[in-house]
Amino acid sequence: MKVSELGEFGLIDLLAGMVEETGSKEAARQLVLGIGDDAAAWHGDASIQLATTDSLVQDVHFRLDVTSWEGLGWRAMAANLSDIAAMGGFPRYALVSLSLPGSTDVEDVASLYKGMIVLANRFGVIIAGGDMSSAPLLVINITVLGGTGSKDSKILTRSAARPGDKIAVTGYLGASAAGLEVLRDNLDIEFEAAENLKSAFLKPSPRVAEGQLLVEKGVRAAIDISDGLIADLRHICERSKVGARLETDSVPVHPAVKANFGERALDMALSGGEDYELLFTAADEVIDSVEEAASCPITVVGEITADNTGRVIVVDEKGNPVELSSAGWEHFS
Amino acid sequence: MKVSELGEFGLIDLLAGMVEETGSKEAARQLVLGIGDDAAAWHGDASIQLATTDSLVQDVHFRLDVTSWEGLGWRAMAANLSDIAAMGGFPRYALVSLSLPGSTDVEDVASLYKGMIVLANRFGVIIAGGDMSSAPLLVINITVLGGTGSKDSKILTRSAARPGDKIAVTGYLGASAAGLEVLRDNLDIEFEAAENLKSAFLKPSPRVAEGQLLVEKGVRAAIDISDGLIADLRHICERSKVGARLETDSVPVHPAVKANFGERALDMALSGGEDYELLFTAADEVIDSVEEAASCPITVVGEITADNTGRVIVVDEKGNPVELSSAGWEHFS
Repeated sequence: MKVSELGEFGLIDLLAGMVEETGSKEAARQLVLGIGDDAAAWHGDASIQLATTDSLVQDVHFRLDVTSWEGLGWRAMAANLSDIAAMGGFPRYALVSLSLPGSTDVEDVASLYKGMIVLANRFGVIIAGGDMSSAPLLVINITVLGGTGSKDSKILTRSAARPGDKIAVTGYLGASAAGLEVLRDNLDIEFEAAENLKSAFLKPSPRVAEGQLLVEKGVRAAIDISDGLIADLRHICERSKVGARLETDSVPVHPAVKANFGERALDMALSGGEDYELLFTAADEVIDSVEEAASCPITVVGEITADNTGRVIVVDEKGNPVELSSAGWEHFS
Repeated sequence: MKVSELGEFGLIDLLAGMVEETGSKEAARQLVLGIGDDAAAWHGDASIQLATTDSLVQDVHFRLDVTSWEGLGWRAMAANLSDIAAMGGFPRYALVSLSLPGSTDVEDVASLYKGMIVLANRFGVIIAGGDMSSAPLLVINITVLGGTGSKDSKILTRSAARPGDKIAVTGYLGASAAGLEVLRDNLDIEFEAAENLKSAFLKPSPRVAEGQLLVEKGVRAAIDISDGLIADLRHICERSKVGARLETDSVPVHPAVKANFGERALDMALSGGEDYELLFTAADEVIDSVEEAASCPITVVGEITADNTGRVIVVDEKGNPVELSSAGWEHFS
């Protein structure tokens, strides 16, 4: 059925029914009003509240011939949950604003929501409201609201990196960019590797638990890797007024990327983006304690320096500066 | 300068500078992090929290040849503040997500923000974050977060209307739809009327104080008039499982609309939309006490009935049913 046949309010009813079962019991208990009124409402608490928003635009952030509708919903939700993870917070409520052509199949919109809901449920997040409008192309905007664990919990910021801090990342890098190429170009690589990479692109897993662990272990500076390792490290350096030295030899390139993309593998890990791993900085002993407690790999990739220009220097295994082909995703450039 | 020349991060810096001075002192004191990190953060309190989101899509919600950039920013912010007003809440923080072509003039984007900021400041709202991306056309998404006045404050919902309640509206209706026609068709009407109507469309004033007054006086059911009087009354009836009888003779058609649009004036007031007045229902004596305390006109336009189908019956001054040419704005239809 076309969205234009179902109508705006019919579509809202359908999606409101789908999201009814989302969220943790606690989030549901504190929710006063979900979808269907002028605004969502919930009982606040005394901790720090967090809010983040992210838009995905058709043919800019995604192509419908490459991404499934379910994968698209998943990725849109993941991008926002990852921002809450990068603050060390607990995501709790989401608002979904959809702009789409009336000719869109309702089944596709339901698949989009299904992708969002699966991931929202994994983290106890309630889809509590949103907005629906027609548009000549698909634009998905999600706002995720959350908070810190308790009244005294700290948050992770981009501005807390200090000279002498080691720079570390969770997991492996480059898999999302490689997965996009596998999907887009129908690359003929080994089945399991192809599945892993496609899944890294279509169903990224935001590091929510890891972000909370970082706070607990005393980390103060973090960002999620959405624009690319170097670009996001630069965001940290600019906001913290420090520099960074990044060693390419230490970068945890995803094994399936290393095995299938030759010389381009490192570039994908450095600049690919959308890996939704966490990049953080802290003193050696803090990173050691994170490594001990984390259930994913933690890899030190460099060091924060006292260069207040925000510059990131990338060096190879011999300490020689590396020329980069691109520095990460930036809109309008 | 084109947005593509300034770049995504340059544009964010520019706009972050512009919003630095927004918000009330209290909101600023509780803000932990504004624009520039992965999420906005603020200290919560124990009252009910509110969140609403709304997207405006180019050539669907607005045309750039009719709306000024500043008016567009104002209207986008007004639509969201009006949703918080319709809950009887206090708006506090906003996230702005912009998708726009790289060829957009930076000056126009700054004007857009200026419109948002003027209105945000009027209500003590801080623009605390957002998202920026390229797109083939302009899409503005705003999320506004707020709360109730105190721990024990009630909220206004769409589902609290009861049979026997009188239906009332704030202010005058139809001016926004008429203003759009004046702008779009360059209508030749008397200067002051034209200015009033254009301003009603370009710079609507959300009824935030009035929403709070409604809560205080014991009103429980309200909605803001964004889709049109009949359409929004129908939303109330459907959510409250009641019916309504609306008397056209009582509808407060804006004087400048009545004077210049002849037979179409009533239609504009019933179905025009975007007036951002409040529609509410309550017992007679509650409405009387609102009327006494309000600084804007309060007009009773009908009555809630025990018809649980959600039907709205519109009658003329003789009590005869009125045939309607349209029932209000609905996307995709």
